[in-house]
Amino acid sequence: MQQAIAILDSGVGGLTVVKEVLRQLPQEKILYFGDTARSPYGSRPPEEVRRFTAQIVDYFNQFNPKMIVIACNTATAFAIEDIRAKVSVPVIGVISPGVRAAIKASRSGNVGVIGTEGTIRSEAYERALKKISPNIQVYSQACPLLAPLVERGLFDGDEALQIVEQSLAPLIENALDCLILGCTHYPFLVGPISKVMGPKVRLISSAEETAREISTILYHRGMLASTGVIPLHQFFCSGEPELFKRIAQIWLNEHISSTPIVWQVPNII
Amino acid sequence: MQQAIAILDSGVGGLTVVKEVLRQLPQEKILYFGDTARSPYGSRPPEEVRRFTAQIVDYFNQFNPKMIVIACNTATAFAIEDIRAKVSVPVIGVISPGVRAAIKASRSGNVGVIGTEGTIRSEAYERALKKISPNIQVYSQACPLLAPLVERGLFDGDEALQIVEQSLAPLIENALDCLILGCTHYPFLVGPISKVMGPKVRLISSAEETAREISTILYHRGMLASTGVIPLHQFFCSGEPELFKRIAQIWLNEHISSTPIVWQVPNII
Repeated sequence: MQQAIAILDSGVGGLTVVKEVLRQLPQEKILYFGDTARSPYGSRPPEEVRRFTAQIVDYFNQFNPKMIVIACNTATAFAIEDIRAKVSVPVIGVISPGVRAAIKASRSGNVGVIGTEGTIRSEAYERALKKISPNIQVYSQACPLLAPLVERGLFDGDEALQIVEQSLAPLIENALDCLILGCTHYPFLVGPISKVMGPKVRLISSAEETAREISTILYHRGMLASTGVIPLHQFFCSGEPELFKRIAQIWLNEHISSTPIVWQVPNII
Repeated sequence: MQQAIAILDSGVGGLTVVKEVLRQLPQEKILYFGDTARSPYGSRPPEEVRRFTAQIVDYFNQFNPKMIVIACNTATAFAIEDIRAKVSVPVIGVISPGVRAAIKASRSGNVGVIGTEGTIRSEAYERALKKISPNIQVYSQACPLLAPLVERGLFDGDEALQIVEQSLAPLIENALDCLILGCTHYPFLVGPISKVMGPKVRLISSAEETAREISTILYHRGMLASTGVIPLHQFFCSGEPELFKRIAQIWLNEHISSTPIVWQVPNII
């Protein structure tokens, strides 16, 4: 099935999902929308997040995508049920793939979750973990400073390390054996995060796991793209395109060097 | 949804899937059928494997299961499409979960696959890997001596190590970065297999990955069991039950010590 997979995020965070889709599903065509003009979503009221997410899904409609991926944990926590009710194609969020990966990975049952204020306050991870495995202990920590760091293009260096250290400090004493990166921006910060958490804590990337879940659902619905067609990806953002394009090019790197891409800034707001 | 997940295998191999389902989905009720009287399936003609698999699925019908899991690579390679056409519930095999995990895990693109003669000759893994990711290099090796080793209860020790060494020798030179254990018996032999392959080769267990895929599909179909009900599992085998029961108890260990289980030897052949 040659229609595109439509992926949306509040900004550049969802590019971590895009990178993994390009790597794990190299034949799939991608549409990406980063709502950079209104990023971050993490501290916005739920109603606003729902409205913004619905606007982007409406914009995607004209391309007739075969699947919608909400590559933003905050938007998944608040808007996924609305979007599922709105469209007829499969809708994948980033919360349950990370939940299933953490359940598979954790041996001690002590699982940490970091995310935006909205995601952590929603308790979506805790509910999803305990629904499947009631005895899991969940330690959650809102890290409101991390996504903005990534949107500024700061992935390492002293400032990044210091902010990551402060943000994760409350989790250190909890003997976690895995930590869910419950915001698609965080894989950009995997260097400082693993330095702070140490080698015994396995980091679960929503991004890798979501790409795998996309693959699973496309397979079970018979919707995988066929062999041999080079896909033409399209990237959209709502704000100033230069920084977005620069971050996308650094992050996606070899995955897009030989791939045609269309960049656009539509007026949807 | 409180109906059971029905899991079948040629013998004890599928218990590796059961163990992971018990661990990753502790609220789900399991029916297991090990066709120990006719094990192994690995060198049987495809038509015979299809007939045996269909017989077991017919037997499961009386329990009205919510999902059928073919926890045998040979039966998945030969019979999954037949079984999908035959039943109305989701049917999960063990090949594509391992394929997706290998694609996620491999950085070099050099993926090894070991399995029974039937599985390797069917080229099911090669086709499934290349369908999703055409540039992957697949190195396959039939290991007909390994499943019988497990059915005899020999999981380590000199004889196991020697047979594993001989079986894997042709793969050693191929600079693999991951190896798919393409037979559900092989996780029993993970000790000797990782000793022979060395620490740089990541082993992909069909069992862990299949349990996770079961979780994904149940979630997306709204079929997960609800919280708080202690499930009563049922285990069946077609042959002599003593060795089967002993292997099941050793392997499932703490996962079944506090769980009620019914053991039966029905006459289906």
